[in-house]
Amino acid sequence: MIRTAIIGYGNLGKGAEAAVAAAPDMELTAVFTRRNPEALQVQTPCVPVYAYAELAKKAKDIDVVILCGGSATDLPEMTPEVAKLCTVVDSFDTHAHIPQHFTAVDAAAKAGGNIAVISTGWDPGLFSIARLYANIALPSGTDYTFWGRGVSQGHSDAIRRIPGVKDARQYTVPVKEAVDRVRNGENPVLTTRDKHTRECWVVAEEGADLEAIRQAIVTMPNYFDEYDTTVNFISEEELLRDHAGLPHGGSVIRSGVTGWDGEYQDTVEFSLKLDSNPFFTGSVMTACARAAYRLKEKGETGCRTLFDIPPALLSDRSPEDLMAHLL
Amino acid sequence: MIRTAIIGYGNLGKGAEAAVAAAPDMELTAVFTRRNPEALQVQTPCVPVYAYAELAKKAKDIDVVILCGGSATDLPEMTPEVAKLCTVVDSFDTHAHIPQHFTAVDAAAKAGGNIAVISTGWDPGLFSIARLYANIALPSGTDYTFWGRGVSQGHSDAIRRIPGVKDARQYTVPVKEAVDRVRNGENPVLTTRDKHTRECWVVAEEGADLEAIRQAIVTMPNYFDEYDTTVNFISEEELLRDHAGLPHGGSVIRSGVTGWDGEYQDTVEFSLKLDSNPFFTGSVMTACARAAYRLKEKGETGCRTLFDIPPALLSDRSPEDLMAHLL
Repeated sequence: MIRTAIIGYGNLGKGAEAAVAAAPDMELTAVFTRRNPEALQVQTPCVPVYAYAELAKKAKDIDVVILCGGSATDLPEMTPEVAKLCTVVDSFDTHAHIPQHFTAVDAAAKAGGNIAVISTGWDPGLFSIARLYANIALPSGTDYTFWGRGVSQGHSDAIRRIPGVKDARQYTVPVKEAVDRVRNGENPVLTTRDKHTRECWVVAEEGADLEAIRQAIVTMPNYFDEYDTTVNFISEEELLRDHAGLPHGGSVIRSGVTGWDGEYQDTVEFSLKLDSNPFFTGSVMTACARAAYRLKEKGETGCRTLFDIPPALLSDRSPEDLMAHLL
Repeated sequence: MIRTAIIGYGNLGKGAEAAVAAAPDMELTAVFTRRNPEALQVQTPCVPVYAYAELAKKAKDIDVVILCGGSATDLPEMTPEVAKLCTVVDSFDTHAHIPQHFTAVDAAAKAGGNIAVISTGWDPGLFSIARLYANIALPSGTDYTFWGRGVSQGHSDAIRRIPGVKDARQYTVPVKEAVDRVRNGENPVLTTRDKHTRECWVVAEEGADLEAIRQAIVTMPNYFDEYDTTVNFISEEELLRDHAGLPHGGSVIRSGVTGWDGEYQDTVEFSLKLDSNPFFTGSVMTACARAAYRLKEKGETGCRTLFDIPPALLSDRSPEDLMAHLL
């Protein structure tokens, strides 16, 4: 059994916990938190909860850590810190900063004699893998990524920071006409506005200026100003009743050509439709934790991404089983 | 430059040739044929054509062979034969016989000190990869594979063998209602007949008994008897005008659940829409040839499938480039 620990017990940590419980070759041995460990009740029976500061002391009894922190501030610091102590996987998803994160984590993992697999999950993660295979099959072509319909936590948080907002949920919605044009092989040039719309469900505080909130949302730089955004005000009851879930998904589409003069038009598409983003992400991370453990067992050290990992290493099934049933 | 040879110059060999020509790190150094080499005109300038029997003599000047024979009779014999001499990739696609093919090729490749990558292309190949990633992400779920709309060469050939048939083209067509039910997460139990229909376009010889041909097709065991099959008789001109291409495609869909009680329903789908099956397959084989060469350069030997190959090895782009642009 692969002795697995989880750091961070938010939605993602809970998703990873369920996935580890379902894995026949893994067991959850500890949860680490930066909150008060005694206030935290985990689902798996008999699993101790420790303060994050205890990790160094417990590291020798852990084969791999699933690090369930956020990309904005937690992971840039924590993944290198953990990689010095244990083999670790994270879901660092700030695409532009992945190369520098890789460099920092690689140095730490090598120093600690561990493996670290970064940027796992679905984007980056399975979507990256889909982009890579589509690119090797169709070197001449164009990549498109559409996200949604799904809840963006970052955008929901940004709305919550606006004065007068009590709670909010933001859905990223792909524009159907744009997706259809890409699927039809039209190779359209699409602006940010052409590809996605943003749909906001907002609970305002009593007496708040709704029009001011609406303006603050739709003009917010980076988050909303380049999109067509709709803002709907609802009651707290409605938000809890209709928008409690964290669904997500999307499509990676590559449209390209083969043949001597590009005479053949091909389309490769990978898509996800997820009821729960954190539970799916936790499941992918758990498979990556298995692969990380196996790479470490082979004596390898340093940072990896899914691009570096033979797919069979991610599965608990034997090579013979995979060849007979999935190949 | 990776010195690449192609064995077999049918549709697939021509597809591989175009893909090698487009690869910045590969060059075509020879084409081998079991037909008369002098009767064969290849597209790439200045590339010699040799008899297949010459391979042993030329092997030292070849880094990797793309073996473009058929799965029924060519590859079971040829892939082990070639693997003793050169690093090689094939597209062996008789799913039930892959394990025994693997064993035979593995022994030959090890004896020759070479790498062999078998069962590349899209099914087996990219579809297998999609099944594997979908399975690691959703260990609890059901796999569905739909093929088409596309030309099945095997079924077209089977029709051509019926007395009175001059030429024929058979399309495999997925049943839209079945695909929709799977995409909706209904997890239906589907029979062979539920999943695909077969559409035949037949040129009969003059005076042939059309009803006898139709009966021979729709009752043919394994090929047609378990399907709803439509038979259309057309002229040779119409066949050449409307059915000259070899389009294909399809979808791999996994429908599964996450969460403690399977409370979250997810769908993962990978799909292809191809104008030319052999040119796309040739392109995937070419990327696999690159990976095979690299594994051999690392000193590895034996048989591999796409399940064993780190995805980055398939690409001509640097790890830094892939991380910055595709991850």
